[in-house]
Amino acid sequence: MSLEDVLARIDADLPDAKTRLMELLRIPSISTDPDYKAQCEQAASWLVSDLQSIGITSEKRATPGHPMVVGHVDGPEHAPHLLFYGHYDVQPVDPLELWNRDPFDPAIEETDAGPVIRGRGSSDDKGQLMTFVEACRAWAAVEGSLPCRITFFFEGEEESGSPSLVPFLEQNADELKADIALVCDTSMVSRGVPSIASQLRGMLKDEFTITGPRIDLHSGHYGGPGLNPLREIARIVDSFYDQDTGRVAVAGFYDGVHEVPEDQLRQWQDCGFDEAEYLNSVGYSQAHGEKGYSTLEQQWARPTLEVNGMWGGYTGAGTKTVIPSQAHCKITCRLVGDMDPDALRDKIRAHVEERLSPDADVTWNNDLEGSRAAVMNIARPEFEAARAALSDEWNREAVFCGMGGSIPVVGFFRNILGLDSMLIGFANDDDAIHSPNEKYDVKSFHKGIRSWARVLDRLSARPA
Amino acid sequence: MSLEDVLARIDADLPDAKTRLMELLRIPSISTDPDYKAQCEQAASWLVSDLQSIGITSEKRATPGHPMVVGHVDGPEHAPHLLFYGHYDVQPVDPLELWNRDPFDPAIEETDAGPVIRGRGSSDDKGQLMTFVEACRAWAAVEGSLPCRITFFFEGEEESGSPSLVPFLEQNADELKADIALVCDTSMVSRGVPSIASQLRGMLKDEFTITGPRIDLHSGHYGGPGLNPLREIARIVDSFYDQDTGRVAVAGFYDGVHEVPEDQLRQWQDCGFDEAEYLNSVGYSQAHGEKGYSTLEQQWARPTLEVNGMWGGYTGAGTKTVIPSQAHCKITCRLVGDMDPDALRDKIRAHVEERLSPDADVTWNNDLEGSRAAVMNIARPEFEAARAALSDEWNREAVFCGMGGSIPVVGFFRNILGLDSMLIGFANDDDAIHSPNEKYDVKSFHKGIRSWARVLDRLSARPA
Repeated sequence: MSLEDVLARIDADLPDAKTRLMELLRIPSISTDPDYKAQCEQAASWLVSDLQSIGITSEKRATPGHPMVVGHVDGPEHAPHLLFYGHYDVQPVDPLELWNRDPFDPAIEETDAGPVIRGRGSSDDKGQLMTFVEACRAWAAVEGSLPCRITFFFEGEEESGSPSLVPFLEQNADELKADIALVCDTSMVSRGVPSIASQLRGMLKDEFTITGPRIDLHSGHYGGPGLNPLREIARIVDSFYDQDTGRVAVAGFYDGVHEVPEDQLRQWQDCGFDEAEYLNSVGYSQAHGEKGYSTLEQQWARPTLEVNGMWGGYTGAGTKTVIPSQAHCKITCRLVGDMDPDALRDKIRAHVEERLSPDADVTWNNDLEGSRAAVMNIARPEFEAARAALSDEWNREAVFCGMGGSIPVVGFFRNILGLDSMLIGFANDDDAIHSPNEKYDVKSFHKGIRSWARVLDRLSARPA
Repeated sequence: MSLEDVLARIDADLPDAKTRLMELLRIPSISTDPDYKAQCEQAASWLVSDLQSIGITSEKRATPGHPMVVGHVDGPEHAPHLLFYGHYDVQPVDPLELWNRDPFDPAIEETDAGPVIRGRGSSDDKGQLMTFVEACRAWAAVEGSLPCRITFFFEGEEESGSPSLVPFLEQNADELKADIALVCDTSMVSRGVPSIASQLRGMLKDEFTITGPRIDLHSGHYGGPGLNPLREIARIVDSFYDQDTGRVAVAGFYDGVHEVPEDQLRQWQDCGFDEAEYLNSVGYSQAHGEKGYSTLEQQWARPTLEVNGMWGGYTGAGTKTVIPSQAHCKITCRLVGDMDPDALRDKIRAHVEERLSPDADVTWNNDLEGSRAAVMNIARPEFEAARAALSDEWNREAVFCGMGGSIPVVGFFRNILGLDSMLIGFANDDDAIHSPNEKYDVKSFHKGIRSWARVLDRLSARPA
């Protein structure tokens, strides 16, 4: 047995690993946009081929949406059975003009913080997904086999609400069952601090359109007596918030929210989170959430109602003196504790409908799913093994941290497969995921691969 | 002398007149969009050729923007010298999917209210402009000459703020001077009620961008502590208004606004305006402007602050969990009385800037012009002559009415050329100008041409 040989192999193979990742990044697998369906298919095929090249039996599995990739490989009898999850789809790239390069023509760029892999999906999630695949490749190359039994499970709809995920898990539950799920889609609490996510926020998505006049109107003819849906939507969006407290003003919004226990708060304070860097790196001088809560609490343990898009009227060059017929708004809520997404959706819709002016109507998008918040089972021995492995690689103690994001698959693994999940990721807060100029530090990629090699080694060890 | 012959000629020539208008409508002369520069040039050339075909000396005159068309024709010595103004440029056509046909492939369509000419610019202003040109064509055909000396002056930037207009008027003031200006760019107060506009609202345009974070952020990472510029812009837009009174809440907004005299209010009440049809035709059950003012007052005599466009974040299909870096807003104000656009711009900007949250910045578009409200000099004898001519044609007494729109050229003619203007137009409120499915009633076109023939006849008459 030779973990050191595996790590050396990873180091030597890094140039080729970067080349493989860039191949995958060149495929514009934007799942939310139907125009990119063929490219999602192409990314799935690429992964199947790549897994097969490591000796992993794998195939594309059709769904009503984009395909799943499922692969299986045996390991020693005593070793645990792991389910590794990642997603090969990426976010849209707009606004394209803010990118410093074609988002799908990735490259290594030198930055003040070291070399980075620039391109859409480099961090979320293709680069992270490949840290695990590359660790397996190195194990297979050095040892001829893998130290654990592993099921690989990649989806292509994570960035578009995973509509096919639940039916697929239900239909293939027996095949996908394992001892524990591993997920690589999270970030480190601060640069260089290896992190295991102990809790995630849930998510509620909604979208509405307010209609005022039957048609677009000329503001010279109807400006005055005319109801303007842009004014209406501004008033309603503003009413979502209490500006004095920073809280959401929708009645019942905080039902099911719990305060963070004192001992957990103390642990978070010591977890290496650099609040000033976190805020300043994006241009903030202060936190803007609920008053009385720390930045970490606002991000990890408090719910939000966020407007992700709002539009209506004339948005081109020059002026158009129009009172538009419609205005549109996309929102997402991050949920914590026991917040129920379905109940919350009803409360938000009632809030809007109660505030509409006469002659204004609202319609809702009823195709959007919600997911509850999740808390990990960190008492399981795999968590301590992973913490030790990460601490070895990064030369500092790994931490259990909260996460502000939402990974609905964790709830589905629990409810459908009966699986706990362990979330380990190597992204940094400045990776600009979902934004122009997304990047993944070469250091995250390299040490991420090495980290997984160490985690596999620790997990495969026979209990003492 | 044979006004009846001219009118008969107009009736006989109507099919050809419609064909000519449709030729002009086929040219997509959208002035606000730089992509249509060549098409604006083409529309100007078409008008030059058409005027020349009537025997009017005319030419395109270059400006830094789209060209002016200027034509001259002599008339009898005793007759007045008229300056006729119209504009050949049109509004953008978005949202294109709401049109029932290609906006630049016009056609005659039968409707419940009679036949209409459907297409962008059919009413605003190509169809209206051509009512005057066709009246002149008929006079020239029947009489061999025109009854008045006329200068034709068409611009191509009316829908984009007329940036070249003032310099052009200043540089060509001697050539463009006349006794009175005629403008055909207004509507009738109600269907079938011939109308002369006695007052116009002015206009202030502004546009701002609010920037929060330096880049687009992931709402899982920054949702909570992150300042969202969409929430910021909603709060600020909402703060423009007092929801209880329907008034604009910007400090000093109503400086220079005067109440309408009682006798004028009474006259307006009798002018044939059908409030229910006006509101119901676009889906309103009531007027939504300042409480305590009639619909006509809200439209003609009260100022507004209107949001014409607002946008930011993700607006495509599906969901994107983004906190955008920027949010944008386009506004226009309609001005009345002695409101000063420059002073008002400062007040609105101060209102916004005072309300910005920490870490939010605002930038303004400084390329947008304003214009004051205008009151016509209806004591001039030409107004009584025109009223008589219109009453003859429409078989009911023509009215002096207010107008909610803004025609800045009226102020420029006054200040630069020393000219009073008389505004006569034949559009209807349901013409959907600036909207999808713009149309012009064939009746407006036909009787509009006949109306101008009668007006020219009345104006050319020697004083008794």
